Amino acid sequence: MDEVPGALGSSASLALRFGQTIFSSGSILFMSFHVEFYSYTSFCYLVTVMGLVIPWSMALGLVDGYAVFFKNLPRRPRVMLFVIAGDWVLAFLSLAAACSTASVTELLMHASQPNCPAKLCNRYQISAATAFLSWFMLFASSLFNLWLLASL
Amino acid sequence: MDEVPGALGSSASLALRFGQTIFSSGSILFMSFHVEFYSYTSFCYLVTVMGLVIPWSMALGLVDGYAVFFKNLPRRPRVMLFVIAGDWVLAFLSLAAACSTASVTELLMHASQPNCPAKLCNRYQISAATAFLSWFMLFASSLFNLWLLASL
Repeated sequence: MDEVPGALGSSASLALRFGQTIFSSGSILFMSFHVEFYSYTSFCYLVTVMGLVIPWSMALGLVDGYAVFFKNLPRRPRVMLFVIAGDWVLAFLSLAAACSTASVTELLMHASQPNCPAKLCNRYQISAATAFLSWFMLFASSLFNLWLLASL
Repeated sequence: MDEVPGALGSSASLALRFGQTIFSSGSILFMSFHVEFYSYTSFCYLVTVMGLVIPWSMALGLVDGYAVFFKNLPRRPRVMLFVIAGDWVLAFLSLAAACSTASVTELLMHASQPNCPAKLCNRYQISAATAFLSWFMLFASSLFNLWLLASL
């Protein structure tokens, strides 16, 4: 079996999963602390989605770490399909969450009477930006795994 | 060459393209008439993206119509790749636009002092819903074409 860079069990995939975990944790942390996120639907949605992405990425990161540092795991097409489907769904959800957060933040900042102090608005923006990065990495993982499935 | 339902040049694809054109036109019409959409960034973005989706879907719909009613066109992998990439990019853009519009509308409706009269808010909601439908159909087209490319 050829080694596809970025596919499940490779070191590039481990890096991608690590990045996903970091960015989605960053997003949820910036949104949760000292912010009343539950007063806006979009922000609740972002926190929910990021709460799904973190365990998913951590679990697959552990699998990758095991495959890189100990021994290579067999790749079954069914397992790959499950991983690809999960990545896709989470990628779409996190894109939707990032867009909603970004647009609501934009509206809050540029409303006729601004609804958030500058410090809070900055936090919202950083949270949206990290969510976008997390989406990008999930999407990359999904594409690399699709490539591997096609080559199986 | 096997016939893949929904791939470029089939009648299912013609139906999908027709639906995309209808829904994206509906979205842009509900957003544009008697609505000051240019006062919100998200709504401007929605109008821009739908303005890209309409000509794309109409052009590919014409190609499908020609293939269905006159004679089948040869399918070259390069052309298919171009169509798939275009569908994907437009699907992501329209998902982002639909999410932004939906979240901004939700914020406008449930703010402490509602910013839009009920009639306008309903228009925004319909516009967001049709944009979601348009995203779903673009995504379906893209998946079917990917399937065809894999079988070429």
